[in-house]
Amino acid sequence: MTKNDLIDCHDRIKPFIHNTPVLTSKLINNLTGADIYFKCENFQKMGAFKMRGAANAILKLSDEQKNNGVVTHSSGNHAQAISLAAKKIGIKSYIVMPSNAPEIKKVAVKSYGGELIECEPNLVARETAAEKIVDSKGATFIHPSNNIDVIIGQGTSCKELIEECGSFDHILVPIGGGGLVAGTALAVKYFGDDCSVIGTEPFEVDDAYRSLISGKIESNTTTNTIADGLKTQLGDNNFPIILEEVKSIIRITEDEIIESMKLIWQHLKIICEPSCSLPLAGVIKNREQFLGKKIGIIITGGNVDLRNLPF
Amino acid sequence: MTKNDLIDCHDRIKPFIHNTPVLTSKLINNLTGADIYFKCENFQKMGAFKMRGAANAILKLSDEQKNNGVVTHSSGNHAQAISLAAKKIGIKSYIVMPSNAPEIKKVAVKSYGGELIECEPNLVARETAAEKIVDSKGATFIHPSNNIDVIIGQGTSCKELIEECGSFDHILVPIGGGGLVAGTALAVKYFGDDCSVIGTEPFEVDDAYRSLISGKIESNTTTNTIADGLKTQLGDNNFPIILEEVKSIIRITEDEIIESMKLIWQHLKIICEPSCSLPLAGVIKNREQFLGKKIGIIITGGNVDLRNLPF
Repeated sequence: MTKNDLIDCHDRIKPFIHNTPVLTSKLINNLTGADIYFKCENFQKMGAFKMRGAANAILKLSDEQKNNGVVTHSSGNHAQAISLAAKKIGIKSYIVMPSNAPEIKKVAVKSYGGELIECEPNLVARETAAEKIVDSKGATFIHPSNNIDVIIGQGTSCKELIEECGSFDHILVPIGGGGLVAGTALAVKYFGDDCSVIGTEPFEVDDAYRSLISGKIESNTTTNTIADGLKTQLGDNNFPIILEEVKSIIRITEDEIIESMKLIWQHLKIICEPSCSLPLAGVIKNREQFLGKKIGIIITGGNVDLRNLPF
Repeated sequence: MTKNDLIDCHDRIKPFIHNTPVLTSKLINNLTGADIYFKCENFQKMGAFKMRGAANAILKLSDEQKNNGVVTHSSGNHAQAISLAAKKIGIKSYIVMPSNAPEIKKVAVKSYGGELIECEPNLVARETAAEKIVDSKGATFIHPSNNIDVIIGQGTSCKELIEECGSFDHILVPIGGGGLVAGTALAVKYFGDDCSVIGTEPFEVDDAYRSLISGKIESNTTTNTIADGLKTQLGDNNFPIILEEVKSIIRITEDEIIESMKLIWQHLKIICEPSCSLPLAGVIKNREQFLGKKIGIIITGGNVDLRNLPF
């Protein structure tokens, strides 16, 4: 992947995404002693950065592939992103979801035009159902985080952030499946100037932290975190990028996630998902490291169930 | 008040305020059949449009008046606005608050640099305490909504909205003490092009609605509304403007306020106060009236106690 790949990707998806706003808060800067810029992907179409990667992956398909549609299995933002991107690009999408997924997420996928296929709530059933669609319909499977076109798409958020605010000392992002952090690392590599990418991850699902140490992709046996977007593990396409480009990973406790989420809601006046609050929690936790530094943070999404808040 | 007064006011306060962002939502537009632009004063300094009027009123003082400081009584956003504006302009502020005001509001006023004076929780005690400061310190009293400089200051939000988006068919705002709606009406008069201002008010405190009918300032005997910013009544400085310039007032039930608030939080991904949700509730309620119209709505503030949400 070259600098031009990222530039071409950004040009390709621009008609399908928002250039999301960047917010700052004096109170948060006073509190942390750092100079923080929040790139607000909660204001992205369908409410999350996932729209970027989904749009890029679909736009890169051949005409024949487009004719046969796309398929994915997800109960999160990727499902909504694929549904909406496919609709906007004018192709068919099939979304496999566990039968016990929240009704609100099923409704969202259908409202964006995706065809919902329900399956048993386990990974094997999800993969089997998706493979069936690939076989029977000829649809192309688009992985939420381990697809190179998805990864490059996610990197455009950081590219916009640097274009708007200049380079940073550090860019901090949460790590789930690894698509955002890998894309961000590529954007920093090509557009950042002496800037490092730092990942943040819940202690409860610290597979990426352990993977950086062991040099191979580690898994989680349990996933007891409120940050429901971060329960997945890295993949063979994003891991090499992460291994090479990500400086370090800070692990965050559940209490720190909630405390940071409260700060963002109160001071930035935005609705964001628990996953979004890990980077700020990392800055607060490692105060000395970030004192006086210019920091970019990607607020990943805002699709929260308001009836189920942790405060 | 002339068009130039509003232009001069805006130039005067620009260094002390944010030109706040305007957000739109396709889902809300689909739902209402209207084309709605939300001017987000929840992102204003100290979290509400009140910063505009407070800054203007203080900046208009003579040097001698500035030397003696300013005083107000308020337990809401005006108190924080006066504290912060006074601090930024470099003068002293005295804020009278009832002793039973929420601790979080007392802390906010003090953190912005205001001197807090606590009094018994009734209007007479508040007024007496404020008069005492006027007498003993020579401080100038700044009313939250019935001060002409405050009114003009509040009008700059609508001026910015029209400058950014062009004119509208209708601008909708909530009505509390009348400062915002009067200022907005002036901005529409001078900068709007065939645009009408429509007020929205809780059924539970419909004093302005009744005042428009009777032609004199009416009061409320009870104020049982979740929209805590809208419990006050109009004043003799803003009422004549409202009587002349405001087309109509739509009354909103408590359930409609909460339902609309939920829609804004979910689809715009922003934190806003219950008061902010009345205009959208009005558009939903009077669907036929607003179908296909271009509508501006001022989201007034975002200082919400997150532990006490209505959903």
